[in-house]
Amino acid sequence: MVETDTPFCDPEGFRRVLQNLPAPDESTRILASERNALLTKPSGSLGRLEELAIWYASWRGDSKPEILNPQVIVFAGNHGVAAQGVSAYPPEVTAEMIANFNSGGAAINQLARQLGTEPDVHAIDIDRPTGDISCGAAMTETEFTQALLAGWRAVRPAADLVVPGEMGIGNTTSAAALALALYGGSATDWTGAGTGVDGSALERKVCAVASAVEHNGPFAPGEGLDALRRLGGRELAAIAGAIVCARIHRIPVVLDGFICTAAASALHSEVKDSLAHAIAGHCSAEAGHGRILEKIGKRSVLDLEMRLGEGSGAAVAALVLKAALACHSGMSTFEEAQVSGAVG
Amino acid sequence: MVETDTPFCDPEGFRRVLQNLPAPDESTRILASERNALLTKPSGSLGRLEELAIWYASWRGDSKPEILNPQVIVFAGNHGVAAQGVSAYPPEVTAEMIANFNSGGAAINQLARQLGTEPDVHAIDIDRPTGDISCGAAMTETEFTQALLAGWRAVRPAADLVVPGEMGIGNTTSAAALALALYGGSATDWTGAGTGVDGSALERKVCAVASAVEHNGPFAPGEGLDALRRLGGRELAAIAGAIVCARIHRIPVVLDGFICTAAASALHSEVKDSLAHAIAGHCSAEAGHGRILEKIGKRSVLDLEMRLGEGSGAAVAALVLKAALACHSGMSTFEEAQVSGAVG
Repeated sequence: MVETDTPFCDPEGFRRVLQNLPAPDESTRILASERNALLTKPSGSLGRLEELAIWYASWRGDSKPEILNPQVIVFAGNHGVAAQGVSAYPPEVTAEMIANFNSGGAAINQLARQLGTEPDVHAIDIDRPTGDISCGAAMTETEFTQALLAGWRAVRPAADLVVPGEMGIGNTTSAAALALALYGGSATDWTGAGTGVDGSALERKVCAVASAVEHNGPFAPGEGLDALRRLGGRELAAIAGAIVCARIHRIPVVLDGFICTAAASALHSEVKDSLAHAIAGHCSAEAGHGRILEKIGKRSVLDLEMRLGEGSGAAVAALVLKAALACHSGMSTFEEAQVSGAVG
Repeated sequence: MVETDTPFCDPEGFRRVLQNLPAPDESTRILASERNALLTKPSGSLGRLEELAIWYASWRGDSKPEILNPQVIVFAGNHGVAAQGVSAYPPEVTAEMIANFNSGGAAINQLARQLGTEPDVHAIDIDRPTGDISCGAAMTETEFTQALLAGWRAVRPAADLVVPGEMGIGNTTSAAALALALYGGSATDWTGAGTGVDGSALERKVCAVASAVEHNGPFAPGEGLDALRRLGGRELAAIAGAIVCARIHRIPVVLDGFICTAAASALHSEVKDSLAHAIAGHCSAEAGHGRILEKIGKRSVLDLEMRLGEGSGAAVAALVLKAALACHSGMSTFEEAQVSGAVG
């Protein structure tokens, strides 16, 4: 792990960090918009690529930035609730997939390579599953703090993009419970197939989600961190820690699917602006994901019916973001290329 | 230009080629599907990436292919109808942008670099604009054949992906006229802002589109090549030639936006199966594009509100396709990685 200042030692300290986040650089945003208007293309013709480039520039404080040092981080944790049979896969798959990440055989390995990097894999206390959320809290305050810190410390301050992903058998159950606690509705609204459950396993999962919120809630609006501690998992808490650490270093973040976004929504519930440095990489096939994206006011870059996690959808979206920056920073202006402007 | 067999010397010969196209390899499709089912991810969890990988494999006759040698080709032509003031830019911009492509300053240069290549730029008789379609045919049979051949010869047989793009002031007018001729409706249904016209310029463009189809039509169903000759442009004909040449070499194609897809639709109108080796890279902000995609039965990979042309949207989509293949061919199977399968 890379040494990083950790300006908190308990959830309350983390909450204080969250209430004092840096803003994007408005003068860079203006400079980047001005540059965008001069590039050799009809105004607006690169569509969302233009928005993405200007947004990214404003966070980096550089009107002509490139993505040269992206960091893909996969956090893994185990979940007590997995013993309830809420997943299509047995809990040992978490450890087996960590080995697969480390030997380069998983989807996220291939996708990170497309970005020119390898994933950093952080297994967080996988020999100690969290408490079973269907009958109690996932983590103590100390465990939660350690998981937040694991995420915080995983971020390389020299990275110019953070793509957080996760692995943890049972974690769509946690994500669904978190969404139910934060946004209401019924357990069925937020519970999907995850790795591929249906029939009686899906019924068990819905019951576990409902039971988790009954046992751990209710949560007042804005109590996202408490919901994350009680209903989340170590990898979800680590994602939250990584997102906030990235913000401190003004490193833009690409959010992945349902689980990653559920973790992020806990931050959003505390401080609405806390995800301003993050984009929604893709919209997952897991139906609850689109609903969370609406709640946090994000529109996804991609919609490819992916539902794997690991950071996979975000990594594909990062390719698009990288391409957007390559255009913004690499294209000639009308003047440089001696191309005539629009008539009249 | 690369020497390639050119098995036609007139439009009728090209039509005969179009009626004898190779099919994908079904046994490879089965092998690729079987491999996909063994990879370390829940079944179907890579969504459209899985479909794309299997489709690509079937065309390459290789159940574990990668994209290592993509070819981005930008065809440029000038249009007599540009003199009617149908574009926001003067006709000399076609030549100026060719210079910009050749010096590396355009959007497509940056995007091709993301794919690890540089665009091949083919300016086709840009000193001789096509006939003004609003009062006659764009090309004679000889001119049309030469443009088809220019496209055909531009394809490198060793490429493993073809991304055709275009540049030509006035060419959304041609594309709209082609769509109107092939699919009916009114000129306003198919005429959009293009490089950014509105008000009286947009009215002139709508009139030019309507007038083009009145003067050159009507076209019977299946007369796509005749419509392409009369209403298209040299760069559109070249795209059609390149798409068919790619098919002969079993090279998959990523279609770009409105103009590229209009050119492709002329082939589809002749032979419905002729675009089976092509995917729709993106859906353009130019409204007519989505309507053509419906007519040719293609669902786009991306929807990023791009409307630049040059092959730009297709090049971004090619990054996604390349990532899909990297997953398909690079991931470990459950057995290789010793990961447990789904329960029960």
